[in-house]
Amino acid sequence: MYLLAVDGGRTKTIAIILDNHGNVLGKGLGGPVGLYSTSCRKVLNNIRTSLDLCLRNAGLSANELSVAVFGLCDLDTSSMVKEAWRIIKELKLPCRVLIKPDFVTAYYAVTYGSPGACVIAGTGSIAYGVNENGREARAGGWGWIIGDEGSAYWIAQKALSAAAKYFDGTGEETILLDEIAKFYNINSASFLDIIDVIHIRLRGDPTEIAKIARVVDEGARMGDDISRKILEDAGERLARLAHGVVKRLEIKQPVIGGVGSVFNSEIVKESFHRNIMEKVENAIIKPPMVGYKPVIGAAILALKTMGILVEDKLLKRLMNSI
Amino acid sequence: MYLLAVDGGRTKTIAIILDNHGNVLGKGLGGPVGLYSTSCRKVLNNIRTSLDLCLRNAGLSANELSVAVFGLCDLDTSSMVKEAWRIIKELKLPCRVLIKPDFVTAYYAVTYGSPGACVIAGTGSIAYGVNENGREARAGGWGWIIGDEGSAYWIAQKALSAAAKYFDGTGEETILLDEIAKFYNINSASFLDIIDVIHIRLRGDPTEIAKIARVVDEGARMGDDISRKILEDAGERLARLAHGVVKRLEIKQPVIGGVGSVFNSEIVKESFHRNIMEKVENAIIKPPMVGYKPVIGAAILALKTMGILVEDKLLKRLMNSI
Repeated sequence: MYLLAVDGGRTKTIAIILDNHGNVLGKGLGGPVGLYSTSCRKVLNNIRTSLDLCLRNAGLSANELSVAVFGLCDLDTSSMVKEAWRIIKELKLPCRVLIKPDFVTAYYAVTYGSPGACVIAGTGSIAYGVNENGREARAGGWGWIIGDEGSAYWIAQKALSAAAKYFDGTGEETILLDEIAKFYNINSASFLDIIDVIHIRLRGDPTEIAKIARVVDEGARMGDDISRKILEDAGERLARLAHGVVKRLEIKQPVIGGVGSVFNSEIVKESFHRNIMEKVENAIIKPPMVGYKPVIGAAILALKTMGILVEDKLLKRLMNSI
Repeated sequence: MYLLAVDGGRTKTIAIILDNHGNVLGKGLGGPVGLYSTSCRKVLNNIRTSLDLCLRNAGLSANELSVAVFGLCDLDTSSMVKEAWRIIKELKLPCRVLIKPDFVTAYYAVTYGSPGACVIAGTGSIAYGVNENGREARAGGWGWIIGDEGSAYWIAQKALSAAAKYFDGTGEETILLDEIAKFYNINSASFLDIIDVIHIRLRGDPTEIAKIARVVDEGARMGDDISRKILEDAGERLARLAHGVVKRLEIKQPVIGGVGSVFNSEIVKESFHRNIMEKVENAIIKPPMVGYKPVIGAAILALKTMGILVEDKLLKRLMNSI
């Protein structure tokens, strides 16, 4: 039996094909599929690219798939879910198809389905959890204009603001002024040019702007206090999202973990863990999942959907072959 | 002698024609001209509309103008200034033409050219000042992604975030949840639909989103603490911008004032004044200018450019006929 699992985010899309024993037979990487910032045509193309790549990789055709699970970002409202179905239907997959918000598949990647919560911190941020009775809750995930606290975009915005204030003489000294200027190849003495970079060159694209988060992590490693504070604050806010979810669901011993590139930062990771320990009693903290790993959640959901028992041996095999 | 003065912002454009005695002969209202959020074609059309209206109003033709002063928003970088010149040149005005950032004309509207600073708080925010030696400084004005603290957009974002957190159960109770939902005709019980409103219906347009600021002012009047806090915080941040400018310019007795729709809020106005008094010694605070008034700055600059003495009598006449 062959199963397709897809993790589609605002930065990249990862598709894998696995068998019912948890062996990964093929992988495919595609571009972003965020419905709020990517056109429908591009979303379809990026999914198709990742799908074709992993089918070729596995030496299979779409007709041989038994199930396909898509974990997609930006599925916040019923109109977005409808839009996603319209796009996925164009793939004409001749098998059972599930479309879930990425936070649901991320939850499975972290907890394997146990009561608990998962925080996604990529370009955007959101927490989602399920309790002993199957009741669900979410917090955050409001997009880059309203919320997404602790996300890479949020970190980038804080960094831009700190650099601008230091340039204006209204804020503390920070290495971020020079480092962000260097990152965009502009002169820090004429930092106002960053306005052109953000609005014209990058067209305000949140995924592009979010890349500044890496500069902040580098800045903190170079000893910059402001950079460190932004990252610690991000970890705290991500912990607050998880706390909000498990509090609402009244989970006694919640499994809690993080998913997404922001957890590549040691400072965010440590702050997140410290704050979870402080805020949530009896939390079982899982190590964060970055890079290819979150697609495991879609894979677990695909296996469960086909009635396959997801036991330790299978999970280990799946983990190792990602 | 006939002079054209234009105040072009992210929300609206106001053009007036005056004579060398300060009598306003015609007025014209046009749409937004923000170069970062409005297309060049629309900017040109909106300027042309306001120009044609006030020429017709005054019963004059463009050939009869001696000078035209344009105070425009979004003129932050040399490339934006170039862009503005390209657009204004298409009007083929057969007279002397000056193009200045809106914060410069706003400064003239508030100080008439005395050492001091002016804060603009409309969709965006910025402070600009000039000292005794003619040295200039600015603070803020980084656009809605990087900065614009205390602006209508900033107030709107804080309000959306507060409503979202209350909905999530991670933030304090606020009337803003219901009031923003009402404003956009969605159900507060399914407030996640606001994501569609912001990203799809409004296309993330900062001028559209900034309209929520009015809801916040209404919320504060209804006794909502969170709304009041956001507005007081806005006033404080606007004062900080002005303080940054006069501190850098070392002005002994600065004239300080505010321009823009955000000062329609009594709470912002009071907080701004209180914080200026606290932060800036010897400040001479001018009442804020809202609505049509800021175009006076462009008019003063037009008069000065033509070597006309801008004395009290003329100023009063100008003020009264706006």
